[in-house]
Amino acid sequence: MRRAPHRIAVMGSGSWGTTFAKVLADADANAEVVLWARRAEVAAEINEQHTNANYLGEIRLPGNVSATDDPVAALQGAELVILAVPAQSLRQQLGEWGQAIAADAVVVSLMKGLERGTDLRMTQVVAQVLGVSDDRLAVVSGPNLAKEIAREEPTASVVACSSQETADWIARSCTPAYFRPYTNTDLVGVEIGGIVKNVIALAVGICDGMGMGDNTKATIITRGLAETTRLALALGGSADTMAGLAGLGDLVATCSSPLSRNRTAGRLIGEGNTLDQVAEKMTQVAEGIKSGSAVQDLAATHGVEMPITAAVVAVIDGRVGVKDMARLLLERELKSEEIH
Amino acid sequence: MRRAPHRIAVMGSGSWGTTFAKVLADADANAEVVLWARRAEVAAEINEQHTNANYLGEIRLPGNVSATDDPVAALQGAELVILAVPAQSLRQQLGEWGQAIAADAVVVSLMKGLERGTDLRMTQVVAQVLGVSDDRLAVVSGPNLAKEIAREEPTASVVACSSQETADWIARSCTPAYFRPYTNTDLVGVEIGGIVKNVIALAVGICDGMGMGDNTKATIITRGLAETTRLALALGGSADTMAGLAGLGDLVATCSSPLSRNRTAGRLIGEGNTLDQVAEKMTQVAEGIKSGSAVQDLAATHGVEMPITAAVVAVIDGRVGVKDMARLLLERELKSEEIH
Repeated sequence: MRRAPHRIAVMGSGSWGTTFAKVLADADANAEVVLWARRAEVAAEINEQHTNANYLGEIRLPGNVSATDDPVAALQGAELVILAVPAQSLRQQLGEWGQAIAADAVVVSLMKGLERGTDLRMTQVVAQVLGVSDDRLAVVSGPNLAKEIAREEPTASVVACSSQETADWIARSCTPAYFRPYTNTDLVGVEIGGIVKNVIALAVGICDGMGMGDNTKATIITRGLAETTRLALALGGSADTMAGLAGLGDLVATCSSPLSRNRTAGRLIGEGNTLDQVAEKMTQVAEGIKSGSAVQDLAATHGVEMPITAAVVAVIDGRVGVKDMARLLLERELKSEEIH
Repeated sequence: MRRAPHRIAVMGSGSWGTTFAKVLADADANAEVVLWARRAEVAAEINEQHTNANYLGEIRLPGNVSATDDPVAALQGAELVILAVPAQSLRQQLGEWGQAIAADAVVVSLMKGLERGTDLRMTQVVAQVLGVSDDRLAVVSGPNLAKEIAREEPTASVVACSSQETADWIARSCTPAYFRPYTNTDLVGVEIGGIVKNVIALAVGICDGMGMGDNTKATIITRGLAETTRLALALGGSADTMAGLAGLGDLVATCSSPLSRNRTAGRLIGEGNTLDQVAEKMTQVAEGIKSGSAVQDLAATHGVEMPITAAVVAVIDGRVGVKDMARLLLERELKSEEIH
């Protein structure tokens, strides 16, 4: 059995990157976890105060988490590299410091987005830019609201890699008492679940903002998972993955929680705010707004119908008002219920 | 195509029975919908005030809904009979007035419970007591919080019958603008989804009452649907049904809504109330408390593992405290994620 990593780099110090650094550090007191922060003052705060107050408030990070604003220094000697940068900036960032990732390091994506323009998943971008092989490329995804994990509330998650051995090795590295990673070799399904749920959460948020009830929201979640499953199947993913923690679980957590950025952005849109007003009112990016059109492109390429995604993108693009979107989604022909 | 029913009996005037009478009456102004109320004063209120204030507050029922406290009068000439009595009382009630149901009437169950002692589904009880054939026996189930439908918030649902023709006929009878019934021939799956979700909603409510977060609740919902699916498959139901509105949809609506009796009962248990205290604080029955052990029995008979149901039943029976239940559910061995 491969020994646990001594040194782990977490690239990106937003709420999920910082929280996952805590998870890794709590899981193994002997591991040295280095967090890369773009801004020097954030790195200094983490090193001196052991907090990242902008994202995690008063949560204290363990002593074996340190930070630097130098990406190459963060990556130095790291056997396990966690990527947690904004999805649409990944390619540019890898261009800047990707070559500093050790040739035999395992690379894990925490990012949930599809690259605009190329419609590539984050692991595909990593593979394309750095040539990392499938057996060293993984994702962690599940019903994982970062703030709840940072507060050490018990949470389950999924580590997915085409190599079961690598998935097991990663899972062993991130198992403090409050975080339970399950393994899955269906990387495509796990990654698609995490990407599309942001778009579905926007739809649920829009319904919420329009004052619709739990019956409607549960229907959007159900049909949203059905269209996500259709896309995952078309890309070679499995239906079981979509019924699991990284599909249904992540979708339900995101759509239930006031902590979710995408649901919050949707709610603001449903209440009648423009996209500019939404951006003003939120400190963090709602990735679904950016990934939505790429998801729609990918679905079209594979001949998959995704009516909820299409409706959300039409609203984001300003082609359809929120009231018309609700009508489009709900007034469907009376027919037999179809999932796949 | 069979003509629409002129006369429809709705047996039971709780919140869902009364709401469904409104749905049927709004769908067809020519239909005569007769609601049977056990208590004469409720029948009088419906006939005179067009309200059922105890359950639906100020909601006004349409003019083509009338009520009677005489079950035989309600059933007189009814081509479509809707059963909406408390699940555990069905057999006794059918014994009292079941023979008044016309031999060729279509019978629809709105009830979501498993009979204690026999472990029979409600449609099985109807078939056993009255000899109604499968092609005249149906269920309506989905993400259907009654109060939202009574307020005419747009809602989708599922009409299930082994006969597609019968399902279509029922669906055409209950399609006002705010209610969209889809049809499904997997009666077993639809009925099991409605039964088990009450038990899972208790588990989610317990977690809520203990102050757990959305990550944990989403995990319980995900694993809860997985165990429901295992049971449905063992009984001949389909996985697609469980991924649809009557499985996932109903579960999510129930687990999300403060209107849900089962989730509310769970929350009260999670906050430390005894079952007696819960009963005192609630005006309506939380069916999951009664059906839970029957679900567990049925699962055992078919060799299906249902750890969440088992944990809920152990709490209800007083064998396990809520704190130990949470520990039992969350501290599972690190392993590959298994759905089926």
